[in-house]
Amino acid sequence: MEQGRREGADAGPTVGQLGETRLIGRFAPLLRPGPAEPASPYELLGPGDDCAVVAAPDGRFVISTDTQVQGQDFELHWPSGAESTGFDTGHKCATQNLADAAAMGAVPSSLVVSLALPPATPVRWVEDFARGLRAGVLACGATSCGIVGGDLSASREISVTATVTGDLQGRRPVRRNGAEPGDLVVLAGTVGRAAAGLDLLLSTDYVPGRDAVLDELAGCQLRPVSPVGLGPALARAGATAMIDVSDGLLRDLTRMAEASGIDVALDPQALAELAKPLAAAGRLLVRDPLYWVLNGGEDHGLLSTVPSHVQLPEGVRPLGSVLASPPGQEGAQAGPLGGSDREPAPDRIRIGTTPVHELPARVRGRGWDHFESQEGF
Amino acid sequence: MEQGRREGADAGPTVGQLGETRLIGRFAPLLRPGPAEPASPYELLGPGDDCAVVAAPDGRFVISTDTQVQGQDFELHWPSGAESTGFDTGHKCATQNLADAAAMGAVPSSLVVSLALPPATPVRWVEDFARGLRAGVLACGATSCGIVGGDLSASREISVTATVTGDLQGRRPVRRNGAEPGDLVVLAGTVGRAAAGLDLLLSTDYVPGRDAVLDELAGCQLRPVSPVGLGPALARAGATAMIDVSDGLLRDLTRMAEASGIDVALDPQALAELAKPLAAAGRLLVRDPLYWVLNGGEDHGLLSTVPSHVQLPEGVRPLGSVLASPPGQEGAQAGPLGGSDREPAPDRIRIGTTPVHELPARVRGRGWDHFESQEGF
Repeated sequence: MEQGRREGADAGPTVGQLGETRLIGRFAPLLRPGPAEPASPYELLGPGDDCAVVAAPDGRFVISTDTQVQGQDFELHWPSGAESTGFDTGHKCATQNLADAAAMGAVPSSLVVSLALPPATPVRWVEDFARGLRAGVLACGATSCGIVGGDLSASREISVTATVTGDLQGRRPVRRNGAEPGDLVVLAGTVGRAAAGLDLLLSTDYVPGRDAVLDELAGCQLRPVSPVGLGPALARAGATAMIDVSDGLLRDLTRMAEASGIDVALDPQALAELAKPLAAAGRLLVRDPLYWVLNGGEDHGLLSTVPSHVQLPEGVRPLGSVLASPPGQEGAQAGPLGGSDREPAPDRIRIGTTPVHELPARVRGRGWDHFESQEGF
Repeated sequence: MEQGRREGADAGPTVGQLGETRLIGRFAPLLRPGPAEPASPYELLGPGDDCAVVAAPDGRFVISTDTQVQGQDFELHWPSGAESTGFDTGHKCATQNLADAAAMGAVPSSLVVSLALPPATPVRWVEDFARGLRAGVLACGATSCGIVGGDLSASREISVTATVTGDLQGRRPVRRNGAEPGDLVVLAGTVGRAAAGLDLLLSTDYVPGRDAVLDELAGCQLRPVSPVGLGPALARAGATAMIDVSDGLLRDLTRMAEASGIDVALDPQALAELAKPLAAAGRLLVRDPLYWVLNGGEDHGLLSTVPSHVQLPEGVRPLGSVLASPPGQEGAQAGPLGGSDREPAPDRIRIGTTPVHELPARVRGRGWDHFESQEGF
C-alpha cells in the first residue's frame, strides 16, 4: 500500500470541492520546515502578505523560473504502469529550480511556487506536491532555502511554476561564457540516468517493482536530485563556466562552448563510466547506454569548466578538456539572450578525436529542434 | 485593422512550427528596454545564463508570484465580441505582479516570466505578449524594473506565471497586520472598473467600439494599470498596513482587518464617488454600480491605512476609518500563512453604520467561496 502517495477513487475531496482558502490552509503549512528542521536563515518574512521578504546579504541575488506541465514534463500514468504522484512532481520542481541557482555558483535562498490545478485534482495530490517540494529541497541539500510563498489557480491541466533565488555569497556569478582553452571539463552529479528512467517508464517492457537497478533509474526520472552544494563549491574552487544539464550533455555543453567560443574534447573512458549503471536498461530496451549519457537531461547535474590545476571538490569528476576553437569561430555564437534564430550545431564537441556528427546514429541523438526543451532564458 | 494585435487565419507561424530556440530568439529581445528607454538599474546580469543577477541594495528583497490561465483569468474571445490579445495578457501579467511588490511599499526591481503555450499558439500572440508585458511595466510607472529572464513550455492551454521582486529601499515592509484604530483607510488607484469591464465583456449587450466610456471600462479589465509608485509613496508617508486589491474591496479589506484585529467603517460618500464612473455600465447591464465597487478586484488599486495626521500623497483618496474591534475579536484570525480552514467573514466592515451583511443583496456580492480568487499566499 502506498497510502497518501497514490491518487484513486478513494483519494478524498477534490480541489474544487474544498475551495481556495481551505486549500491554501492545507497546502501552505506543508511547505514550512518541520519541528526538527532549521528555518531558512534567508527568510525574513514568510507567507501571509502580498510578498515575502528574503535576505540578500551581499546586495545581490540570482533568480530563475521554471515550469512543468502535465503531459509534457511529467505524466500521472505511465505506459509501464508506474504512477507519478504529487510528491514526485513537487520533488522534481524543487530540483529543477535549485539546480539553476547552483549552476551560477549560488546558494539557493528562496523558492516561490505557483500551481494551476483542474478542480477535479485530489486535494491529496496537492498536499503530496507540497511534501515532495520540501523533500526535494532537503534531498538536494538546500537546507537554507525557504519556500516563502505561492499562488493557486484553476486550470484544465496541472501546471507547476517555481522561481528560485540564490545568494552568491560575495562571489562573482559563474556564467556560461568563461571557459578557457586548457580548462578541465567536469561534472558534478550525473547524466543519463533520468533519461534511461524516462524510457523505462514509457516502455511496457519495464515492470516497476521487479528490478531494483531499473527502479532506481525510474526514480531518477521521477525524483531527480541535483548536487546543489557542489555549485558553490565549484565556484569557490575557481570554476570558469557552469551550466545545469537539463537538456542533455551534448546540447548544454554546446551552449557553453558557443557562449565561450571554445571547443571541447570529451574523454571516451569517462563517458563509458557514466554509461555503466545504464547497462541493464540498455539491454532491456535494446539501446546503447551512451545515447542516454550524451543526450539525456533532467538529472540536473552541473557541468563546469575549471582551471586544470584545481583540486576538484569531492563528487566532481573530470569529463574532458577545453580546446581552442579554430580561427574565426572563437566568438560567442548565441546571442546575449540565450536564443538565436538558428539552432545550435553540435560541431564544437568531439568524443576523443571523433566529432559528434561522425558518431553512429544510435548514440548521436535526434537533434535539437524539440519544443519540449527544459531550457529557459 | 489591428495588425499585429489580433490572431486569425493570417496570424503567421505557430509556436510549434517555429521551435523553442527560434521562439526564444524572437520573444526575449522584445522584453528588453527599447533604445530610448533606460535600462533597469537593478539588472546586474540579464537573460542568457541559468539565472539573472539582480541588485538588492539594502540586503533584502520582496518576492511574489502570480499565474493567469486562459479561460480562467483571461479569455481570447469574449461573448461581447471583443478579442483579447497577447498584448492584453502580457500587460495584465505585469500589473498583477508589480502591484504585489508595491503593496509591500517596495519598488519593483525585476520580473521573470514563464509561458506555457499550446503548439498551435500563433508566434504573433507570444510576441504581442512580450510587448504587452513591457508596456504594462511602463504604464504602471515601474521604469526601474527589468524583465530579466523566463521560460517557455508546451501545454494544452495558455498559462502565464510571473514572479516579481522589489526593493524596500531601507524601509520596513508594509504588512497587512499593522492597521491601528484611528487610522485613515485610503485607496491609491481605483476599484470596480475592471469588474464592470469584465461584466461588459461577458455581455452580448455590450458592443465594443460604440461608447468610449464603456470601452474604457473594458480596457480596465483587459489592461489594468496599478499605481505602483504610490506603494513606496504611502510607505514613506507612514502607512501602517497595505494590500493589493485583487479580489475586491470587501474581501481584501476583510483580510487586512482580520490580520490587524480591527474593524473598519467605510464612508458611503467615498464609495458613491467610486461608483460614479460606473453608472453607464450599470444602466446597460441593470446592475447597481456599488456592487462592482465593493466586490470587484483586478484594478489592482492599493488599499492602505495611514495615521490620520498624514499628508496623503497625490492620487490617494480617503475611504473610511479604522475602528477598534469589540473585545475578544482583536486578534488576527487568519493564520500566519494567509490561509485558514474557514472562509473569512465580512463582519469587520460597515458602510457608514450598516454592517456589510445587512446591505441589500444587489450590492453585497456572492460571497467568498470561488476557486478563481486572485489571492496568493
